[in-house]
Order: sequence, then structure tokens, then C-alpha cells
Amino acid sequence: MGELIFVGLGLNDEKGISLRGLEATRTADSVFIELYTSLLPDFSLQRLEDLVSKKITLVSRQNLEEENGVSVIMAARQGKAVLLVPGDPFVATTHVTLRIEAEKKGIRTRIIHGASIISAIIGSSGLHNYKFGKTVTVPFPENFSETPYNVIGQNKRLGLHTLCLLDLRVEERRFLTVREGLELLFAIERRRAKNIITPDAVAIGVARVGSEHPSLKADFAGSLLEYDFGSPPHSLILVGQLHFMEAEALINFAGAPNELRNVAK
Amino acid sequence: MGELIFVGLGLNDEKGISLRGLEATRTADSVFIELYTSLLPDFSLQRLEDLVSKKITLVSRQNLEEENGVSVIMAARQGKAVLLVPGDPFVATTHVTLRIEAEKKGIRTRIIHGASIISAIIGSSGLHNYKFGKTVTVPFPENFSETPYNVIGQNKRLGLHTLCLLDLRVEERRFLTVREGLELLFAIERRRAKNIITPDAVAIGVARVGSEHPSLKADFAGSLLEYDFGSPPHSLILVGQLHFMEAEALINFAGAPNELRNVAK
Repeated sequence: MGELIFVGLGLNDEKGISLRGLEATRTADSVFIELYTSLLPDFSLQRLEDLVSKKITLVSRQNLEEENGVSVIMAARQGKAVLLVPGDPFVATTHVTLRIEAEKKGIRTRIIHGASIISAIIGSSGLHNYKFGKTVTVPFPENFSETPYNVIGQNKRLGLHTLCLLDLRVEERRFLTVREGLELLFAIERRRAKNIITPDAVAIGVARVGSEHPSLKADFAGSLLEYDFGSPPHSLILVGQLHFMEAEALINFAGAPNELRNVAK
Repeated sequence: MGELIFVGLGLNDEKGISLRGLEATRTADSVFIELYTSLLPDFSLQRLEDLVSKKITLVSRQNLEEENGVSVIMAARQGKAVLLVPGDPFVATTHVTLRIEAEKKGIRTRIIHGASIISAIIGSSGLHNYKFGKTVTVPFPENFSETPYNVIGQNKRLGLHTLCLLDLRVEERRFLTVREGLELLFAIERRRAKNIITPDAVAIGVARVGSEHPSLKADFAGSLLEYDFGSPPHSLILVGQLHFMEAEALINFAGAPNELRNVAK
């Protein structure tokens, strides 16, 4: 009976994979990779193929989602198949359907975890993990939604921080920037005026977490608009109630202004 | 000028480290490890030392926290020092103080991320990441607190799931089990009677996520008490409003009863 192993690629490039993931990939009968759910900025498929001494088949969104991952499922029926996925494989729910499909066909599934952008961003920021509320994604303007604004507001009322992932379409090389994300939120604030995302709200922009040159900057949201975070991917944190130890971390790790000490408790 | 790199060990054993983390450790002038913030069930320090061809110094909680990590700081002043940390280094806030200390002394700090228990548990469960509220830790009975109960209630009112980490003291080999965690929550429910953690609440127990033999079981909380999750570490998820795709995932991956389809929306 076949086996399908979802292996997390972790962050940034081919060196984000774990030793366990590398071993499973090297010993697999067939290896697939998808690179559309997240951007690994310095990744090279050629270098990964050299590392695992194997041909790796790139699968598209259409193949995995519209055609139900038929090529992956067929390979997994016949032997040990690996699907390489950026980050930690099931942090995005994209592949849950494929996993259910495989299990229903009697294919054993396993997960080999990788570093996730979510814990990496939260950890890099120096903010306390247990002070984050619900996570949200800010969509591109053409998919406009007030949900992120409302989730940030709901978290803020509870004193909690919000991790805002910024929408991306890797295939089209389109990535929302910190500035664009903030501007979309400010535009909703102007309309709704609930005082949720004002220029003096504390926010953190992050870019390329897990790479050799990550960018991390905490500031009042109005000032953050002017900051150049460089190349994608970008993410954003809207800060709720700031603990004084969190303020120290932001000042030391994220170039936050010293005034942050005055808003911390 | 010196450098301090926090390297995540990821999950379960020495094969959870990323290739980037391995490379940094191999080329470091001095390598430290702490193994008290989280349990890596199948980890061997000897095997890791063989992998990196280096002597690794085990540092205690006392050394890192009460003595401000003086040995690590001293090594980082003189060259490239690596501190190996289970999971993703800053998901627990334990080492934030050490990092601030280092930065203040002019030591450059960097993070090489690893798989975190938090994204791994959420991903393994098949639940949607953006439907989780605030995370909480259920403490040992001698540190009794109603906070976890209240956080679960707050999340539940918003339709959100709660990841409940269960307390541990690795040095004393003490680990709260799923059963003990649930019993502590039931005891608060009996006193407060807010209908937050009733026997028909949907809950998920997980054990040894990231190992070769993880355990994952979703059921009504009353039934989950009887399930044997085996050796530590254990964690618990209290489910809020269940989406029908989440119910399918729990039935397929976590042995949940088919009745879950009736409570999903």
C-alpha cells in the first residue's frame, strides 16, 4: 500500500528543510513540489534536486486543486510519494482536501513539519505568542473585504495583537506590501471611523523572515507607511496592548521609537 | 564583533533541525543547547554531536535565566556562538531577555527557525489556522488558574478554537496529560457552570506531534477522557464553531465520530 508524505520546506530557500524531510525525500519513489502557496525568496529547484539527488516534479495550483492532485495520488498509490510544500505543510488549508482524498483511497499520509512563517514572524517580533488573537489575511484590492479591519478591532478590544498575512499570487509575482496593506486598512478606518487603525496605532512590518536579510520595523502605523521593506514577502502585525517587556523587545530588535515605553503596561 | 545565533531544533529529535541550522552549528566557534523549554521525545545529544562534529554544552534553566546566560554571552562576545533551542526559538518568550541582553552588549543576534509545536499541532489537526483564537497553557494543579477556562470561553463565544498547551517540567520529567488537562477544566466548569467545557464539547488530544508515532484523537470531551495518548508531550484543542470541511478532516485524520458532521456548519 502506498504512502503520501507532506514535507515542509520551511523558510526562504532549499536549506529550510529539516534533516528528517531531506531523508524522506531522498528515499521516496517520486517527489513533487508546489511553490504557489507561499514565496521562498531565495529558493532554487535545481539546488534542491542536487541536494536530494532526484528529479522533482513541479505541480501547479490547477493540478493540485482543480484536478484533485491526480498525478500525486497516482504516484502515492504505487509507492512512497513526497509532496514538498513551502513552510509547514498544513498551516494553509490548501492541501487538506488532497490529504482527505488520499486517506479515503487507503493511502497512508504523514507530515514532516517545517518552520512556519506564522511562528517565525511572531517569534522574530519579540511579542508574546499567547497575546495574539485570530490571524487574518489582507486581500488584494480587487477582493476587498472589511474582515481584516473587523478582526483587528475584535482582537484589539481584547488587548490582543493581530498577525496580518498579506495576500500574494506567486504565479503572477504579485505581492501586497506593508504599505499597501496599511493603506487598505486606513481606507476602511476613514469610512468606518471606529478608531481601530489610526496613524498612532503601533504596527510592525516584516519582510523575508527566515532569510539572511530579514527586515523588521516597529513604529506608529502612520510612520511605517514611509519605511522601505525591500523585496517580498511582507507581513504586518497590528499591536494590541503592549507589555513593557514586549516594548523592550521591539525597541531592541525592531528599531521601534523609545516612545513605545510610554504606551506599554 | 561576536554573534549569537538562536537555532531551532524543530520537533521530536536531532533530525528536526533545518539544513541552515545544521550548517550554522557546524561552523560555530561554540555551541550551546537547552532542553528544558520543551520535550523532544526521541532526542539524543550524542547523535546531534556526531552530526555536527562538535562538542555541545548543555545549559540549564538556572544558567540561562537566573545567571542571565553569562556563559553564552561570553562565548558570543568572542566569536560565533549558537544556542540550540527545541522547536522555533522564540515561540516561548523564555529567551527574549537573553536576546535583548546580547543586543545591548553589541552582539549581533540572528534566528534560524525550526518547526514549532504550535503550527504543527494546528496543521496536523486539519482545523483552519485562522479560526484559532488566543493560545493558552493549562498549568499544573499546584499553579491552579481559571485563565485557561476563561480564554476558552472567550474564544468559543467568537466561534474560535483554542490551542491549550499542557504544562511541563522537563527537568523533573513531569508532563500534564490530555486527561489531566481535561479534568482540570471540567473541575472549573463544575464550579463556574458557564457551559464552556461540557462533556459534549468537541476536543482534540494530540501527543508527540512530529514524531514517527504521533497520536491524534478528536471526540466529545467526555469520551476523550478515556483515550490513551501514550507517552508525552501532550496537547489539547478545544473546538469552537466547526466548519464542515474541518469536521471531514477530523473524521479522516483524527478518528472523530461521524456525529461531528451534525455539529458542523
